Amino acid sequence: MNNLLQKPRKVYVSRKIEFNAAHRLFNPNCTEQENLEIYGKCSNLYGHGHNYMLEITLSGIVDRNTGFLFDLKALKVILEEEITERFDHKHLNYDVPELKDCVPTTEVLAVLIWDILEQRLKTTTNNQELALHEVIIYETGKNSVRYRGE
Amino acid sequence: MNNLLQKPRKVYVSRKIEFNAAHRLFNPNCTEQENLEIYGKCSNLYGHGHNYMLEITLSGIVDRNTGFLFDLKALKVILEEEITERFDHKHLNYDVPELKDCVPTTEVLAVLIWDILEQRLKTTTNNQELALHEVIIYETGKNSVRYRGE
Amino acid sequence: MNNLLQKPRKVYVSRKIEFNAAHRLFNPNCTEQENLEIYGKCSNLYGHGHNYMLEITLSGIVDRNTGFLFDLKALKVILEEEITERFDHKHLNYDVPELKDCVPTTEVLAVLIWDILEQRLKTTTNNQELALHEVIIYETGKNSVRYRGE
Amino acid sequence: MNNLLQKPRKVYVSRKIEFNAAHRLFNPNCTEQENLEIYGKCSNLYGHGHNYMLEITLSGIVDRNTGFLFDLKALKVILEEEITERFDHKHLNYDVPELKDCVPTTEVLAVLIWDILEQRLKTTTNNQELALHEVIIYETGKNSVRYRGE
Amino acid sequence: MNNLLQKPRKVYVSRKIEFNAAHRLFNPNCTEQENLEIYGKCSNLYGHGHNYMLEITLSGIVDRNTGFLFDLKALKVILEEEITERFDHKHLNYDVPELKDCVPTTEVLAVLIWDILEQRLKTTTNNQELALHEVIIYETGKNSVRYRGE
Amino acid sequence: MNNLLQKPRKVYVSRKIEFNAAHRLFNPNCTEQENLEIYGKCSNLYGHGHNYMLEITLSGIVDRNTGFLFDLKALKVILEEEITERFDHKHLNYDVPELKDCVPTTEVLAVLIWDILEQRLKTTTNNQELALHEVIIYETGKNSVRYRGE
Repeated sequence: MNNLLQKPRKVYVSRKIEFNAAHRLFNPNCTEQENLEIYGKCSNLYGHGHNYMLEITLSGIVDRNTGFLFDLKALKVILEEEITERFDHKHLNYDVPELKDCVPTTEVLAVLIWDILEQRLKTTTNNQELALHEVIIYETGKNSVRYRGE
Repeated sequence: MNNLLQKPRKVYVSRKIEFNAAHRLFNPNCTEQENLEIYGKCSNLYGHGHNYMLEITLSGIVDRNTGFLFDLKALKVILEEEITERFDHKHLNYDVPELKDCVPTTEVLAVLIWDILEQRLKTTTNNQELALHEVIIYETGKNSVRYRGE
Repeated sequence: MNNLLQKPRKVYVSRKIEFNAAHRLFNPNCTEQENLEIYGKCSNLYGHGHNYMLEITLSGIVDRNTGFLFDLKALKVILEEEITERFDHKHLNYDVPELKDCVPTTEVLAVLIWDILEQRLKTTTNNQELALHEVIIYETGKNSVRYRGE
Repeated sequence: MNNLLQKPRKVYVSRKIEFNAAHRLFNPNCTEQENLEIYGKCSNLYGHGHNYMLEITLSGIVDRNTGFLFDLKALKVILEEEITERFDHKHLNYDVPELKDCVPTTEVLAVLIWDILEQRLKTTTNNQELALHEVIIYETGKNSVRYRGE
Repeated sequence: MNNLLQKPRKVYVSRKIEFNAAHRLFNPNCTEQENLEIYGKCSNLYGHGHNYMLEITLSGIVDRNTGFLFDLKALKVILEEEITERFDHKHLNYDVPELKDCVPTTEVLAVLIWDILEQRLKTTTNNQELALHEVIIYETGKNSVRYRGE
Repeated sequence: MNNLLQKPRKVYVSRKIEFNAAHRLFNPNCTEQENLEIYGKCSNLYGHGHNYMLEITLSGIVDRNTGFLFDLKALKVILEEEITERFDHKHLNYDVPELKDCVPTTEVLAVLIWDILEQRLKTTTNNQELALHEVIIYETGKNSVRYRGE
């Protein structure tokens, strides 16, 4: 079966999920005026929000038996537990303990999600080839940030 | 000039703009438990947010001289002043006085934006033919609400 | 609460869901040659498939207490049971009894989904104002069919 | 066959096609200054351009034998001959005779395409039920104009 | 001409095409039960389908005379012959001989399309610089697989 | 503050902007016939046009104080001055001096925009880590070119 897979094939598998969250860009170590200069209207007191679109990419060798890189049902559970539970319909400044000492910019969010997913994947699979390759967050249709663990 | 316009032509002109806002679905006249039953995680204390995509549609007869339905520079100013100023980077529950006694659902937001724009257009043009035809708000890629003044 | 809703407001609420299905356009009452002339490569023996995007629209008066047109949790259950269960990951020609005596074109699918949802809504709510307004199916990014019960 | 179609069902079938064209908004009956005031940078001498996305919608009763509203192969030929041939990779001000005495705004283009397609459909089918329902042109992702023959 | 190209410039040129196909994820070497555990509803007997969006990327040095990386008319013919002919409106399990001994997952499809296009490009051009860089398949708007020949 | 940033994190930040322009693919050093063979209908005399979507990506270490890679207000000014001013609502063959001796293909445009933005960034920041990583231009929804300075 799957004779196209007789030699190892390294693929990149991506999956998108959306979460809807509020945030406020505000650094308590700076003055109101400094915050306004750095963050503009993103520093408004009560915050604003986004439909964050998250795309995660895994890399590794396609499994010769299943033709899959990774069990999609397992991935679905991981994303549900680690992303939806943690971020969806939340205010990033108040509801996410991991962001407590951070300004929740998209850059910081991408780094946090990488750290969370990389840790979780390690404890989920002993496939040495499988790796988290990239985390992209589209804050709007125009702005996105990607992090690759560098 | 514009002999295609020798007979009157009624067209519908649509324009999209986006605003990023937070909201919380919570009715202070109901108990916490009732709110949770009606609004689910949309009633979380600090709110969440969306990239709201607004599409407004005007209808009327194409101007024979310009080939336009409406002066786009005027429309741009209207949307900037009435929509961006009022809603962008705001928390709908706290920052928008017109929503004070409302649960800021997408339905309510569509109705409010219609009321605002219809009023503004009346004071802007004396073109009797020009009318606000429709307001659509896409809360996410999956959910939208349209209101036509009915 | 919700003083924008003191007068009745008729809105249109739309929700999209996707299902992935196979189909073959083939009329057993016609010859192979006739089928090829009418349906071209859509009549290939084993069928092909699509990511069908379905958008349904309900109309009615916004509820003064909730600010909603319709309970979204109830809508989610309806779409799960009536659409996802029936069509998702199915071959429309073999797996959907309601399509047994039909050529499963997008037109026919739109009509069937209308009939199913209209019947289901009647048995779900006794809100006389609430109505199914429109069913749209996007077969591809280029082709779509809408049915409004006419 | 197609017992869902035993009663007549009126559907709306839409198809999108794209064409890439240049245009300049300039009215030779006005001064340079007036053109600049009305059309702004759209009146720049050599013109600019767009990926115009055209969506046409036909309405009528689904055919009981085919399950189609209209023969898609016939529609493809019509759009190729009437739209692609006429507008694609053209400069609307110089290459399209029908626009000679017009300022080629999106409004005017929508009206022209309606006139062309309605005429062509009349000569193509003797199905009395079939009608051109709507022409929409998306000039950009933000701006669109629809015309319904009113 | 093209003095921006006096030094060699390596670019990546991407082109998308869509094909509509059915598939069933089922490994005949496994039991029904095992297939259900691995593939879930993707293993349903008659298959389901997708609008597969394929994006291929070529890399190489821009030609100093034409300003192109590769003759687009040649690329169009290649994609028509190798992709559309082979996959469009087909059932991947029955109609594509190259997939006979494979479970037609998106991973396997990406690998196969890479192998086909890389072979074809070699026989098409003797430009040593030109290379197939990447094949991406979007199975749905949410899931995609990329293969780079690794 | 921002203890996720205690170790340096290299991110990639992307921003999209659109410009609407006309162009003609024509090489004055070739005959009419040669131009037609190379560029087909893209060589039509008066040109055609596109909604060019430009996505630029910067890379570098996230700033520990702001949580940003780069001051977005500065980036906005740069893109306004270098891209919108230069290309929007222009005819690339006549209105852009930098393209004078070039055939304005998408490949050439990507290279030019890279050269412009890389030069500008150098003079804007003395952050040694910050770099222009990639320029992508989507000429249509189907075709795109990326350049990474190689």
